[in-house]
Amino acid sequence: MSYSAVEIIELKRDGGTLPDEATAWMIAAYTRGEVPDYQMAALLMAIFHHGMSQDELWAWTEAMLHSGELLDLSEIRLPKVDKHSTGGVGDKVSIPLAPIVAVCGVAVPMMSGRGLGHTGGTLDKLESIPGYTTALDPARFRSILAKHNVVLAGQSQDMVPADREIYSLRDATATVPSIPLIASSIMSKKLAEGLDGLLLDVKQGSGAFMEELDEARKLAETMVAIGSRHGVKVTAFITSMEQPLGREVGNANEIAESIAVLRGEGPEDLTNLTLTFAETMLELGGVRGGRDRVIEALESGAALEKLRDLITAHGGDPAVTSDPSLLLAPDHVETLRAPQSGYVTRCDARTIGVASTRLGAGRERKEEDVDHAVGITLHAKIGEEVSKGEALATVGFDDPERWEAQRERLASAWTIGDHAVEAPRLVIERIG
Amino acid sequence: MSYSAVEIIELKRDGGTLPDEATAWMIAAYTRGEVPDYQMAALLMAIFHHGMSQDELWAWTEAMLHSGELLDLSEIRLPKVDKHSTGGVGDKVSIPLAPIVAVCGVAVPMMSGRGLGHTGGTLDKLESIPGYTTALDPARFRSILAKHNVVLAGQSQDMVPADREIYSLRDATATVPSIPLIASSIMSKKLAEGLDGLLLDVKQGSGAFMEELDEARKLAETMVAIGSRHGVKVTAFITSMEQPLGREVGNANEIAESIAVLRGEGPEDLTNLTLTFAETMLELGGVRGGRDRVIEALESGAALEKLRDLITAHGGDPAVTSDPSLLLAPDHVETLRAPQSGYVTRCDARTIGVASTRLGAGRERKEEDVDHAVGITLHAKIGEEVSKGEALATVGFDDPERWEAQRERLASAWTIGDHAVEAPRLVIERIG
Repeated sequence: MSYSAVEIIELKRDGGTLPDEATAWMIAAYTRGEVPDYQMAALLMAIFHHGMSQDELWAWTEAMLHSGELLDLSEIRLPKVDKHSTGGVGDKVSIPLAPIVAVCGVAVPMMSGRGLGHTGGTLDKLESIPGYTTALDPARFRSILAKHNVVLAGQSQDMVPADREIYSLRDATATVPSIPLIASSIMSKKLAEGLDGLLLDVKQGSGAFMEELDEARKLAETMVAIGSRHGVKVTAFITSMEQPLGREVGNANEIAESIAVLRGEGPEDLTNLTLTFAETMLELGGVRGGRDRVIEALESGAALEKLRDLITAHGGDPAVTSDPSLLLAPDHVETLRAPQSGYVTRCDARTIGVASTRLGAGRERKEEDVDHAVGITLHAKIGEEVSKGEALATVGFDDPERWEAQRERLASAWTIGDHAVEAPRLVIERIG
Repeated sequence: MSYSAVEIIELKRDGGTLPDEATAWMIAAYTRGEVPDYQMAALLMAIFHHGMSQDELWAWTEAMLHSGELLDLSEIRLPKVDKHSTGGVGDKVSIPLAPIVAVCGVAVPMMSGRGLGHTGGTLDKLESIPGYTTALDPARFRSILAKHNVVLAGQSQDMVPADREIYSLRDATATVPSIPLIASSIMSKKLAEGLDGLLLDVKQGSGAFMEELDEARKLAETMVAIGSRHGVKVTAFITSMEQPLGREVGNANEIAESIAVLRGEGPEDLTNLTLTFAETMLELGGVRGGRDRVIEALESGAALEKLRDLITAHGGDPAVTSDPSLLLAPDHVETLRAPQSGYVTRCDARTIGVASTRLGAGRERKEEDVDHAVGITLHAKIGEEVSKGEALATVGFDDPERWEAQRERLASAWTIGDHAVEAPRLVIERIG
């Protein structure tokens, strides 16, 4: 059956509910190139203004999901659980998390993304390991997963083409920050992986796309509902992104910090969040053992060994796990010092994320390359005491002009007060 | 200066006010093809949802107006006044009106449009006169106007190209019914004509694009404000479009009815509205004489003579003014009869307009051709008494299948009740 794109736009424009078949037709026709970008753009803006009902969004997500190939992991006998973060600053959790979970008997077919705007991306971070390939064909993806219980790659071009097209269009038409559009984009990609369980990390706060808790909660609930209806167990955590996660923001330095977590030498916030997520992924996979089993995987060194195997399987040099100096290093290092003594009351994730991106660690446009060597190491986070002249951060960069342009911005990320404050609670809420 | 289209869309998406320079940049860049259709589509949908402030709309209209060539009528010494209707069913007022006004010493450089949807267009009607050319280059447009005080043509391709592009895009993206977008589209085209005065006929009711009086009033006020700020005297009338104007709906038959008006044999509603508009156009042009002068132009036969000259100047056959049988006639004629006796309480303009369009008199897509011969003659309008079996309408058509498909629809346009009702007042309000 053929529909009229104009009538579909008109219906949503006036706040109506799109019939399932109309949605399916629109997404399929758009993916085939029969509905032009300008009609989809108008529809996206109408959706931005009116939102979507649960049923409507379900049909939209399913239509996106079925716009391309699905990943067939039926030969994998272990429960398959993935984790997705909505994006933050210093968020390298996936890298230590995936090997820990894999060691515990849950298969982790993780498809990640790249950094955009002020946030980093797992693929960019992994590519700072010499030789590591994130682009795998489905056969190789499956074979690495079958052999190692874990694979950490980019999404295949044949999967969910509608999302790729719609995401680019949203980026160019100011329709990114819409809960139904975000939820359907994430869930269509994740559900195309054929998972049994999914852990969602919905970041909230200054460095997140959702700055308000209400919005983060709504997004989390929306995604949990879509997953459940699809028959996948989904748990969402809302976690704080007021300050960066861990102490490293960049690419190569985040890999080094991930390795440190697996060596038992990682920062407390990052390590704890990784363990909590790992425990939950076991639960979602129906695997027993809980936190004890997860800690055992870490403390025994099995998870670090798993990361080594994973890197090798992806063509990378596993020696980085014992010698982080094999990772790219920046040409220059400067120290940013505390202008006064006191307690850190603010260590702003967004400001640090923007500075890191502008130093070259991220990209403002999709076409840009990232500089894997540059990054920021945080020496003082919220609640910590500093003395005047003590290091707040060490900054690694390759281009002195960029550093000059970012120095002031980066310094503005910290506020130092006279009284100690508590660090924000990292796990704010669990949904599902 | 260069702006970011995404930031402009984002600002309007969030209900903000676009700075004048940003608007000017966006329209100019879009006209040059540097901003793609999908970004303009997203902006149009955001404007649909948030509207525009008076200042914002002024800048938007001026940017459209200056997107192409302006018509230079500086050599025309008479006051220049045009009339524009927002579109209705059976609305052929321009055709008898322009010659009357021209006879009274006001130059009428009228640029008209084509029918779209259920409404007719002046250019389509004029083209049912054998030989009549509506496409004139600016030199010929000016020379006909200089010689005859009147010209009735289509708009030059070089004028207001932004409106042409944006109008097509609105049509395809369900962003037509937006007061600021309608007002800027009309006013940019009219102000590009270099007028001294402008009469606006804002149709309201079933057969109009504005069904509600509030909306019609808002559109009228918006356009009057834009015109005044541009230094052009503008008067808007809100007139009823509950039932068709006059008794003819189509193309050739509307030309015949226009000629009848100039012969003093036109229907009362159409004749009176024409005279009221003519009187107001004299007023807008600062020409004395009022209604008496207008009636004199009609009764003396000077206006009919003027129409003859106008047709000749446009390459048409002026003999149609004395022998309407020279106009194209339909192959078949059928009569639609009253199913019962009583009083007509409803004679629905939209239903009749749709039926006429589907018979071939109009177009649903811009690419379609119209069939000039087909049309509907109304024998019973609101307030008139009919006996069972008496003719409600005579329908001329070329394609019997189309007539079969429209017969029931057309019949549904009439409601016949037991008690007499008043015909709706034609002139509802005057603004400015």
